[in-house]
Amino acid sequence: MSTIERIHAAATVLDGVARRTPMLTSPFLDEIAGRRVLVKAECLQHTGSFKLRGAWFALSQLPEADRARGVIAFSSGNHAQGVAFAAREAGVPAVIVMPEDAPRLKIANTRALGAEVVLYDRETEDRDEIGARLAEERGLSLIKPFDNRDVIAGQGTTGLEIAAQATDLGVSRADVLVCCGGGGLTGGIAVALAETDLTARPVEPEGFDDVARSLAAGRIERNDRLTGSICDAIITPAPGELTFPLMARHCGAPLQVSDAECLSAIGHAFQRLKIVAEPGGAAALAAALHRGDQITGDAVICVVTGGNVDKEIFLKSLA
Amino acid sequence: MSTIERIHAAATVLDGVARRTPMLTSPFLDEIAGRRVLVKAECLQHTGSFKLRGAWFALSQLPEADRARGVIAFSSGNHAQGVAFAAREAGVPAVIVMPEDAPRLKIANTRALGAEVVLYDRETEDRDEIGARLAEERGLSLIKPFDNRDVIAGQGTTGLEIAAQATDLGVSRADVLVCCGGGGLTGGIAVALAETDLTARPVEPEGFDDVARSLAAGRIERNDRLTGSICDAIITPAPGELTFPLMARHCGAPLQVSDAECLSAIGHAFQRLKIVAEPGGAAALAAALHRGDQITGDAVICVVTGGNVDKEIFLKSLA
Repeated sequence: MSTIERIHAAATVLDGVARRTPMLTSPFLDEIAGRRVLVKAECLQHTGSFKLRGAWFALSQLPEADRARGVIAFSSGNHAQGVAFAAREAGVPAVIVMPEDAPRLKIANTRALGAEVVLYDRETEDRDEIGARLAEERGLSLIKPFDNRDVIAGQGTTGLEIAAQATDLGVSRADVLVCCGGGGLTGGIAVALAETDLTARPVEPEGFDDVARSLAAGRIERNDRLTGSICDAIITPAPGELTFPLMARHCGAPLQVSDAECLSAIGHAFQRLKIVAEPGGAAALAAALHRGDQITGDAVICVVTGGNVDKEIFLKSLA
Repeated sequence: MSTIERIHAAATVLDGVARRTPMLTSPFLDEIAGRRVLVKAECLQHTGSFKLRGAWFALSQLPEADRARGVIAFSSGNHAQGVAFAAREAGVPAVIVMPEDAPRLKIANTRALGAEVVLYDRETEDRDEIGARLAEERGLSLIKPFDNRDVIAGQGTTGLEIAAQATDLGVSRADVLVCCGGGGLTGGIAVALAETDLTARPVEPEGFDDVARSLAAGRIERNDRLTGSICDAIITPAPGELTFPLMARHCGAPLQVSDAECLSAIGHAFQRLKIVAEPGGAAALAAALHRGDQITGDAVICVVTGGNVDKEIFLKSLA
């Protein structure tokens, strides 16, 4: 099955399960950006992020016997909640491996959704290794956060909705800015939009631009470090083996944003759109508002996702 | 035209203009409430509240010559922004009479949307009188915030969406809690739901229960005072001549909530639904979460609206 076929299959499975999140606008944001800003408010998805889409579709594609034994996922938080939510709804046991410095709210939410949480040290331990070991010991199916065809397809359904909603709002040609960690969402959206005049562009935190460097080099490049930004949700070691080729083929030029610009975007999303976004999930809006010189066209579309913001960070955005 | 016919006419005019705001849910809210909680997130409407619906429909029904002279509205904030937004889109001049103690953000937003703002003292001046005088002097059409058939019909379209969305979520019989000031939204929704097994119930701030007392007495009763609650958006002198009979005929038992309960609801809406609500707009969710003993059934629906919350109040809700 091709990636686009898989995305359409995912859309069928997710119909009535994932929310068709709204595309929001505000004349105040348009004024700041100097062009129309369309915001795909994926923070209003179940569990607060698009991760539910990929998790649910991947879970649905497992053989029944594998589902009965359970699933495992490793995640800085949003994928964890997506898998936990989907597993609970499907009656499947879930083990989630999370960095011990993940926002407490995300850890608590994942546990409250019924998953078993295993913590690890992001600096000294390898989450892939931990995940693989636990999976083998218990016969669990590993649901990777981005480098999994079904997860990519699930996230890609966001792109199908974006294309339809943009058309409804009279926008047929525009950049689609996507907060980018490992590239599951960005790659999936890029494929979903490949036959349109909408162009997916990855947005990363400054200093954690592994995707931009990989796209420039034509091969996978890694981040030097994995901490030091408030955008924890989109900091990953490197783009995936599956996601990188999709981004290389279908994405436009990447952008980078600062922590301060993400805080600003959180504040504007709060005040003007009445939605709550976490720093990494606000990166695309930050680029739309503050990096307009790198964007062309009368309109820009950006995905806002990840509403699991720590209160301390949120308060800073209002300061 | 009957009220329900007028609501359907408004739905046609508003199609593609007003957002069909999502119905949100969270397992965490269900647990607090002890039943399923469906939240009609009308704070995601243009300008942050349902007021855009009534304002737009009322404006659309004015004769062309009246539209050319302009419109006037008096409002504590959300109706102001709804009228200003609709007037700007329609190219109609708008004058807004606002209490001088309205949240600064609402005043600023109304001006930014292109309206002329006239301030008055809520304690010593009568906004109806001021509005009527300005309307006469300049030939402006007065768009009342609730006691206007077209405004009620516009707000009532929220009820049509609630009925459809509740059905999609498998809920056919439930209380529909509605934050209630003058009764435009509550009365409109009550009529829209009259032929269903969904029952609209007004929710008011404690100490400002003019609607509850009016319904009990069978005649319009007034509030003793108009200040002293953070729920400024839903404090009005009395239910309207048009809205009261609609509520008396179609509404279930009213509820009251405290300021503290509204702050709690703002915090839960932030954390669990990723939406921003102001105190009055969170009153129905407050009742769903904290007054469950006065609610029956396996599910409850509540309207959350009015995202123009002052930062100081919002910070309190996170404390």
